Amino acid sequence: MNPRAFASDNNAGVHPEVLAALAAANAGHVRSYGHDALTDRARELFRTHFGPRADAWFVFNGTAANVLGLGAVTRPYQAVICSDGAHIHVDECGAPERIAGCKLLPVRCPDGKLRPADLPPLLHGVGDEHRVQPRVLSLTQSTELGTVYSVAELQALVTAAHGHGLLVHLDGARLANAAVSLGLPFAAFTTDLGVDLLSFGGTKNGLLGAEAVVFLQGTGGEAMAYLRKQGMQLASKMRFLAAQFVPLLEGDLWHRNAAHANAMARLLAERVRDVPGVTLTQPVQANGVFARVPPVHIPALQDRAYFYVWNPELAEVRWMTAWDTTESDVERFAAAVREIVR
Amino acid sequence: MNPRAFASDNNAGVHPEVLAALAAANAGHVRSYGHDALTDRARELFRTHFGPRADAWFVFNGTAANVLGLGAVTRPYQAVICSDGAHIHVDECGAPERIAGCKLLPVRCPDGKLRPADLPPLLHGVGDEHRVQPRVLSLTQSTELGTVYSVAELQALVTAAHGHGLLVHLDGARLANAAVSLGLPFAAFTTDLGVDLLSFGGTKNGLLGAEAVVFLQGTGGEAMAYLRKQGMQLASKMRFLAAQFVPLLEGDLWHRNAAHANAMARLLAERVRDVPGVTLTQPVQANGVFARVPPVHIPALQDRAYFYVWNPELAEVRWMTAWDTTESDVERFAAAVREIVR
Amino acid sequence: MNPRAFASDNNAGVHPEVLAALAAANAGHVRSYGHDALTDRARELFRTHFGPRADAWFVFNGTAANVLGLGAVTRPYQAVICSDGAHIHVDECGAPERIAGCKLLPVRCPDGKLRPADLPPLLHGVGDEHRVQPRVLSLTQSTELGTVYSVAELQALVTAAHGHGLLVHLDGARLANAAVSLGLPFAAFTTDLGVDLLSFGGTKNGLLGAEAVVFLQGTGGEAMAYLRKQGMQLASKMRFLAAQFVPLLEGDLWHRNAAHANAMARLLAERVRDVPGVTLTQPVQANGVFARVPPVHIPALQDRAYFYVWNPELAEVRWMTAWDTTESDVERFAAAVREIVR
Amino acid sequence: MNPRAFASDNNAGVHPEVLAALAAANAGHVRSYGHDALTDRARELFRTHFGPRADAWFVFNGTAANVLGLGAVTRPYQAVICSDGAHIHVDECGAPERIAGCKLLPVRCPDGKLRPADLPPLLHGVGDEHRVQPRVLSLTQSTELGTVYSVAELQALVTAAHGHGLLVHLDGARLANAAVSLGLPFAAFTTDLGVDLLSFGGTKNGLLGAEAVVFLQGTGGEAMAYLRKQGMQLASKMRFLAAQFVPLLEGDLWHRNAAHANAMARLLAERVRDVPGVTLTQPVQANGVFARVPPVHIPALQDRAYFYVWNPELAEVRWMTAWDTTESDVERFAAAVREIVR
Repeated sequence: MNPRAFASDNNAGVHPEVLAALAAANAGHVRSYGHDALTDRARELFRTHFGPRADAWFVFNGTAANVLGLGAVTRPYQAVICSDGAHIHVDECGAPERIAGCKLLPVRCPDGKLRPADLPPLLHGVGDEHRVQPRVLSLTQSTELGTVYSVAELQALVTAAHGHGLLVHLDGARLANAAVSLGLPFAAFTTDLGVDLLSFGGTKNGLLGAEAVVFLQGTGGEAMAYLRKQGMQLASKMRFLAAQFVPLLEGDLWHRNAAHANAMARLLAERVRDVPGVTLTQPVQANGVFARVPPVHIPALQDRAYFYVWNPELAEVRWMTAWDTTESDVERFAAAVREIVR
Repeated sequence: MNPRAFASDNNAGVHPEVLAALAAANAGHVRSYGHDALTDRARELFRTHFGPRADAWFVFNGTAANVLGLGAVTRPYQAVICSDGAHIHVDECGAPERIAGCKLLPVRCPDGKLRPADLPPLLHGVGDEHRVQPRVLSLTQSTELGTVYSVAELQALVTAAHGHGLLVHLDGARLANAAVSLGLPFAAFTTDLGVDLLSFGGTKNGLLGAEAVVFLQGTGGEAMAYLRKQGMQLASKMRFLAAQFVPLLEGDLWHRNAAHANAMARLLAERVRDVPGVTLTQPVQANGVFARVPPVHIPALQDRAYFYVWNPELAEVRWMTAWDTTESDVERFAAAVREIVR
Repeated sequence: MNPRAFASDNNAGVHPEVLAALAAANAGHVRSYGHDALTDRARELFRTHFGPRADAWFVFNGTAANVLGLGAVTRPYQAVICSDGAHIHVDECGAPERIAGCKLLPVRCPDGKLRPADLPPLLHGVGDEHRVQPRVLSLTQSTELGTVYSVAELQALVTAAHGHGLLVHLDGARLANAAVSLGLPFAAFTTDLGVDLLSFGGTKNGLLGAEAVVFLQGTGGEAMAYLRKQGMQLASKMRFLAAQFVPLLEGDLWHRNAAHANAMARLLAERVRDVPGVTLTQPVQANGVFARVPPVHIPALQDRAYFYVWNPELAEVRWMTAWDTTESDVERFAAAVREIVR
Repeated sequence: MNPRAFASDNNAGVHPEVLAALAAANAGHVRSYGHDALTDRARELFRTHFGPRADAWFVFNGTAANVLGLGAVTRPYQAVICSDGAHIHVDECGAPERIAGCKLLPVRCPDGKLRPADLPPLLHGVGDEHRVQPRVLSLTQSTELGTVYSVAELQALVTAAHGHGLLVHLDGARLANAAVSLGLPFAAFTTDLGVDLLSFGGTKNGLLGAEAVVFLQGTGGEAMAYLRKQGMQLASKMRFLAAQFVPLLEGDLWHRNAAHANAMARLLAERVRDVPGVTLTQPVQANGVFARVPPVHIPALQDRAYFYVWNPELAEVRWMTAWDTTESDVERFAAAVREIVR
């Protein structure tokens, strides 16, 4: 068995209940492309969590969830405002621009969070044909830096965005971690605040590989069937995407997985916080710990448990925890930090 | 359990050996995005089957396998010659044009097969900037009409295409069915004939959902890492794509599944061939049976076991068999045909 | 001075009245990008000819007029039905697919004209996400084969298209030639019949280089400002595009130029019709003459006055006349045909 | 006649020698699409100015020159590094991303100029499929802020870029203004330093509307014929684009026009430099003057002669001069500044 490292929550495997659901779904013939009972059931579960107008479309990965969602509500001369560290901006190899066709307008966000005051300077060109036209504000929740927007922060952003004629999109690759961190059901910090659409991340929360684009307010998904197919994201054996969401959302598996990952991050932060030479750089609000460590010690630490250098200029590293990270994984790695860094 | 119909081989589920491999792959943490031992192993198996220069890239579905493969070897002003019934032409919602950027040049092919004589009339515009420039000949093997190119036919096409400066691509969504039909190992009718690249279909041959783009002759894949990521087809938990190919290709599972499906199609053709009012429209060389039936009887037949009307103008229907179709499925349906059509 | 040939109406130069208008427009500073009085005036002239809701946008060339117009009224999963000889299909190097993003669905049309019965077979896939969704019927008027749709033919096509939920687009690169041929003002065979949008060709009718996308029924142009800019077709010194249309449309220059070109084509047809070995292949209704001639004589004829071989398989050639073709040009060339072909 | 303002050098008209050249080009029939003697002659003139390997392609406007040039040397997963004020980044409505397909990586440049030290932080992701891959460094010469790269600055940038595997592109919409400012022939600060390709601006230097993509080092233009056609930039009556470049480049018209515009900008700067309340924000090295003025006075100033507010947050305005700006235009406007601002 491979050791559990702190590289990414996508290095974890599949939760056993999800594997069991895949096996259970494997019975006989089922109509393809989503015309099946499991797909209906999984879509219904999204309505349970996000409200009766929630319209969920299953895709293979997070890149597609973000790109197809943004593409569904924009035309190519429109633009998406996001943070300068947004996954869509730095980690999608240009897929949003190439496939959705939209230019991204990044804003410098040291803690990963946008603020209402970031918007007006980007809106001078509205109505000017030389400029791309801002149409969507995309927020990542929890952020790429392990922070979480509060309800008040989100509400202010949604109000500001809508006031400027912008839709609000959430990149929710780790939405469950945010929900646990906020102690709220999903709708309370998404649909109920007026968020228009989101990407719902399943893969990092214990699935084999399934994400969803969810339109929350009853509009946006009109062309999604065609956009998903043309976007190379229509699964022929759709039941096996849908089947993964059922155990996740039917009970509390999504919550258990995320709560555990978040707790492991807090534990790790607790254990390394006082180590001389280690400086935590962000509050630990979800399942990531960001810290500056002496660069000379990074290779030795990576030998103990692999992780990524997040910002080479700052010698900032990222330690991610997952649904399957154990307390002893954390204690062993924290001990290594204490041992190696001093 | 759902009844097994004749709608499509993608209505079938996952072969038990594949599900077992997925479970076995689910141990601890593994590096994501394909930097793992199972991905190495699966890629090696493609070299075993297709020759030492075969370079396999795993993607989620067949649309992506075709589009990314074609996109990797073309620029947008180039064109792809294909049959007028090619899946890339009629069943991908325009994905090749939209994502690879290439125009398709369809040729009328009543039996689904192109011939060398089809090429010259499409080449008058070579060097003329007003015309898209043909760059690839894309053949489907086995074809969308259940026919199979012979080795001689393929060799003639490859020779002609190369002589005209065209690469040869195979849409191999059902390549295993063709291999079984020809009684040949994969390389004998692909790599060894000079085919340049292909899409290798796993999903219809018993996988949960995994396909591969395979560059056969040592070139073409240089930019594939970026194209796959930007094309929204890079799986974070890649081990679970790779894991599916291992049981398929390590032993003879691919052959067993395809041989069974082909046999069931032959059996069905045998049983309905003599029914008055039923006319088989294509030779049955793989796992599909095409027939004209009196339109008035189609709904009653679909009630017994669902299938698609292929050509509404001709009242031509398609009956597909799968790895899990049973003899009794066939006998029951053939009896229904005899009973209903007369 | 170069000899006048029969290669294309775009081999002709600029009408002197248009050059004079360009010189007259060259006075002092004018706001760029179309915020100027000449642009207002030219747009007004389009309303005069096409009705009060006509909304004209000036672009550099015919490729752009077609592609931007089609792109304005479609999304990339939609499709455009056209003839198999449509300029957008065979002579734009794939620009419609690449820039507008739409797949073209060509229909075989031996005389360049579509008919209402061509539509239903292309509509089986409406609502099926695997198929591109037909959204526009694009007709060329006058056609690429020198024929002209009658009002009755157009009315039947518009009625059929609208009945199927399709918009109607005209590629009017030679719309003036059609108007003259029909003996009708522009609106009578466009706006008044319900045509939704068109490309209006100026360049072949005596301009230096200017075309227009015209939305006829009050909708379609909402995003055109952005689409034109992003489509690389926004002229900074727009007054010099607009200035060309003013003399063309203010008086009867458009009519004089087209009427002359059409007359020269008729004269040429008259003169060669009886030459043994020459067979006219299309009725001569606009400014093109299509004929089969013995292939062996083609090079000698091209030496006298250059022209294009239209269909190499058929030894069919195209002789185009222009606003500046003279009777003596025609008589000299007709004499050459009689002399060389026998 | 319209008053000459300071809004943009593209508000100016056409130099009389250029209009005369257009008239002279208007003789008889000429083969279309660039197969004519004037196109040959204009291309030869580019070789005279930029060296024997210079390969010039004429297009309609600056957007196209930049986008087609960048598109010719990149694939869509590659990226272009530019300043945050680069025209391609802020004033093309997303055309580079949409048409060339490439993501732009902007760098904050307060004076409009990039420096070698800007490059390394953008190169951490080289070889990482999640990141777009930097391929081109695009510099604007003269810059959007009226500054000019010195030869030493350019040489350092070219050396650094090539060392990192990047090509160097110049957006030369105002290349003539830079040449005059540097007192150098074109090749001395482009081809001879190793610059790989550039956009050559004609329109702002007195043409009616014509720009060129120029590949300087013998490579890059291989597919340009197709890219230009598909990019909707192939002029049918190409002679009228080419004809504009002949008077510009055959004698010293390019130099006269740019030298005059530059001199007028220096004169304006001189005249307003000491006005209390006016602060010049950039050195005046080409034909633009940037200044902060009290926001309350901007409308009154614009009434005298129109200009654009460049940065609303800073109350920074831009005053552009053109080939036809007169000393009395400048003196009159400077007097207005002195009168209104105090």
